[in-house]
Amino acid sequence: MDVFVTLLTDFGNKDPYAGIVKGVLFSIKSDLKVIDLTHEIGPQNIHQGAFVLGTSYKFFPARTIFIAVVDPGVGTERRGLVLEAGDYTFIAPDNGLLTYPIIYEREWRCYEIKNSSYLLHPISRTFHARDVFAPVAAHIAAGEPIENFGPPVHDPVQFKIAEPLSLEKEIKGQVVYVDGFGNVITNIPGELVIHKKVRSVKVKDHNLPFVTTYGDVKQGKCAALVGSTGFIEIAVNGGDASAFLNASIGDEVLVETT
Amino acid sequence: MDVFVTLLTDFGNKDPYAGIVKGVLFSIKSDLKVIDLTHEIGPQNIHQGAFVLGTSYKFFPARTIFIAVVDPGVGTERRGLVLEAGDYTFIAPDNGLLTYPIIYEREWRCYEIKNSSYLLHPISRTFHARDVFAPVAAHIAAGEPIENFGPPVHDPVQFKIAEPLSLEKEIKGQVVYVDGFGNVITNIPGELVIHKKVRSVKVKDHNLPFVTTYGDVKQGKCAALVGSTGFIEIAVNGGDASAFLNASIGDEVLVETT
Amino acid sequence: MDVFVTLLTDFGNKDPYAGIVKGVLFSIKSDLKVIDLTHEIGPQNIHQGAFVLGTSYKFFPARTIFIAVVDPGVGTERRGLVLEAGDYTFIAPDNGLLTYPIIYEREWRCYEIKNSSYLLHPISRTFHARDVFAPVAAHIAAGEPIENFGPPVHDPVQFKIAEPLSLEKEIKGQVVYVDGFGNVITNIPGELVIHKKVRSVKVKDHNLPFVTTYGDVKQGKCAALVGSTGFIEIAVNGGDASAFLNASIGDEVLVETT
Repeated sequence: MDVFVTLLTDFGNKDPYAGIVKGVLFSIKSDLKVIDLTHEIGPQNIHQGAFVLGTSYKFFPARTIFIAVVDPGVGTERRGLVLEAGDYTFIAPDNGLLTYPIIYEREWRCYEIKNSSYLLHPISRTFHARDVFAPVAAHIAAGEPIENFGPPVHDPVQFKIAEPLSLEKEIKGQVVYVDGFGNVITNIPGELVIHKKVRSVKVKDHNLPFVTTYGDVKQGKCAALVGSTGFIEIAVNGGDASAFLNASIGDEVLVETT
Repeated sequence: MDVFVTLLTDFGNKDPYAGIVKGVLFSIKSDLKVIDLTHEIGPQNIHQGAFVLGTSYKFFPARTIFIAVVDPGVGTERRGLVLEAGDYTFIAPDNGLLTYPIIYEREWRCYEIKNSSYLLHPISRTFHARDVFAPVAAHIAAGEPIENFGPPVHDPVQFKIAEPLSLEKEIKGQVVYVDGFGNVITNIPGELVIHKKVRSVKVKDHNLPFVTTYGDVKQGKCAALVGSTGFIEIAVNGGDASAFLNASIGDEVLVETT
Repeated sequence: MDVFVTLLTDFGNKDPYAGIVKGVLFSIKSDLKVIDLTHEIGPQNIHQGAFVLGTSYKFFPARTIFIAVVDPGVGTERRGLVLEAGDYTFIAPDNGLLTYPIIYEREWRCYEIKNSSYLLHPISRTFHARDVFAPVAAHIAAGEPIENFGPPVHDPVQFKIAEPLSLEKEIKGQVVYVDGFGNVITNIPGELVIHKKVRSVKVKDHNLPFVTTYGDVKQGKCAALVGSTGFIEIAVNGGDASAFLNASIGDEVLVETT
């Protein structure tokens, strides 16, 4: 049966780091299949990494093993984790990267990576993706039960995710991600407005119409819609909404309903 | 037998979109092999996407399935297509992206994607690569005949490709692509000059020599040659010709022959 | 048995060139596994390519075939090489790219690619990765002995690698690579200081502490440490050391020991 290992990191595509992680994976288990989710999470931007992982992992085959590495604390006492949550396994530093699967999946169990017999020696102090996380992933893919890597963890680090505030005639949320097209993604789930009529969406003094697809407004015009992540996002038809609005992470978004 | 799915998109490498498409492909057919052609087509630049696909696809194994997504009209009434052309299958929005294989291959047949039973539900209005094109590709890879996806299409959108004008002692063409090295690629096929002597190539007031390889001119010098695409291109030995010439897409290129 | 082909090039991720190389590989041997080490070596920067290859290849499975292409001399008389060194095979232009495996591996044998019967015809003058190196790699993966590609080569081009100067109370080295995080990597192996006490590391008028991991200094502070390549590197905790120091390739680094 095919076993998939999916990578999310802030390593970038210039350096050989992501390639080396694959080399280690295949050295231990040559019949793996490796998928890149992205290597361009903003350097050390754990919140962005967590959001991208959280809105992506359910599209992968059941039993996929994710290695998520945005790791400003590498080499310090921060723990390394193996998390089994729902149908998936996640390997990551214990810094909040795994917040979303822990919240989203009803059942999870988590272990600290302590058993050094599976790791690549000498273990560097700066590249645990290569020396710790990749070997652990390959051994899990080869059938090693996750409880063999170390003691159970009951308190993995979790972010307090900014929840939108849902009032009678408005929902207050905020910008959580800007994609490469300049689409501005909020933390307001589309479900919150499914039974309401949206009058307008306010961002940075702009009053935007709420539509169902990019093409519902003219070329160059800005609108809000439910995006492919399931969250409300703001886009410019054929353009870059983040530049148009001068919007960035954390900006308030107000959805006015009737 | 190995089945290949090759991806060409304008999604960029920062966002998780290309990775998610792979997750969907493997969720449906886990023994596929997926190849990235590029994810850095200019945002919504259909002409560039068509040119890159058209000059690349013949280097892939017969029976490769291409998913090509540069899709400013996603979510509107624009059709989604499955095209079988020559030895290959192409899946794309109906906006001209498939112009080259339709022209190049003697035989083709094309169908609109209408049969929603193969798709990922709910179908988002903004990410058909994930919800429509990837599931269709995976099912074709699994053996589904392409006529099962919907009604035949006899008029897929095709660009009028800018053809070079071939006169007695000159050929007038234009710049159609600039690559990452700064090489300036024209729409003039090398075959047009195969039995002629080229006196010079004129671009933006520069008179360039016509050579056979980069190293035929000194370091830093600019020349024209038949490039790896088969078209005439302009390069600087060890440098960036587009910067040197200040050349961009659409600029006229004049080949003077004897 | 799985056979891996690993790619290192300066093609970038925008253009279809790396994807086309994979198309050619799979067209000849469809059950290969292809890994990207990087395609973002600086354009025509052979020294950078050699360093990245030299510090990466040992993390890949034995019998991996590397295609390394940073090739300013493509189409000239420069030779194309197949090198077997230690457990690995390397295919590259003869310009110094393979310097490190030749130095590091006790046993090697090398052949010039001359036998055109394995190549893709017509052989372009500008894209030997596609027409020469990929077909050779695929045929080696399929079992072709490397001596069948052409005559033996006893003098492959090798750089003189800048060696650090080890004096009684100091080691003089230099910056050889800056990674995407801004970490500044030197040519001073960590082993040189393993039995010494490092008093400080001097770069561009900065006196830096020598630590064991990023987190040993405060956020925003700069320090030197033994990095994951095994060489001494300079980093800023949570920041960009190359920007902080205004450091670039070739800058002197002085390690003061007791």
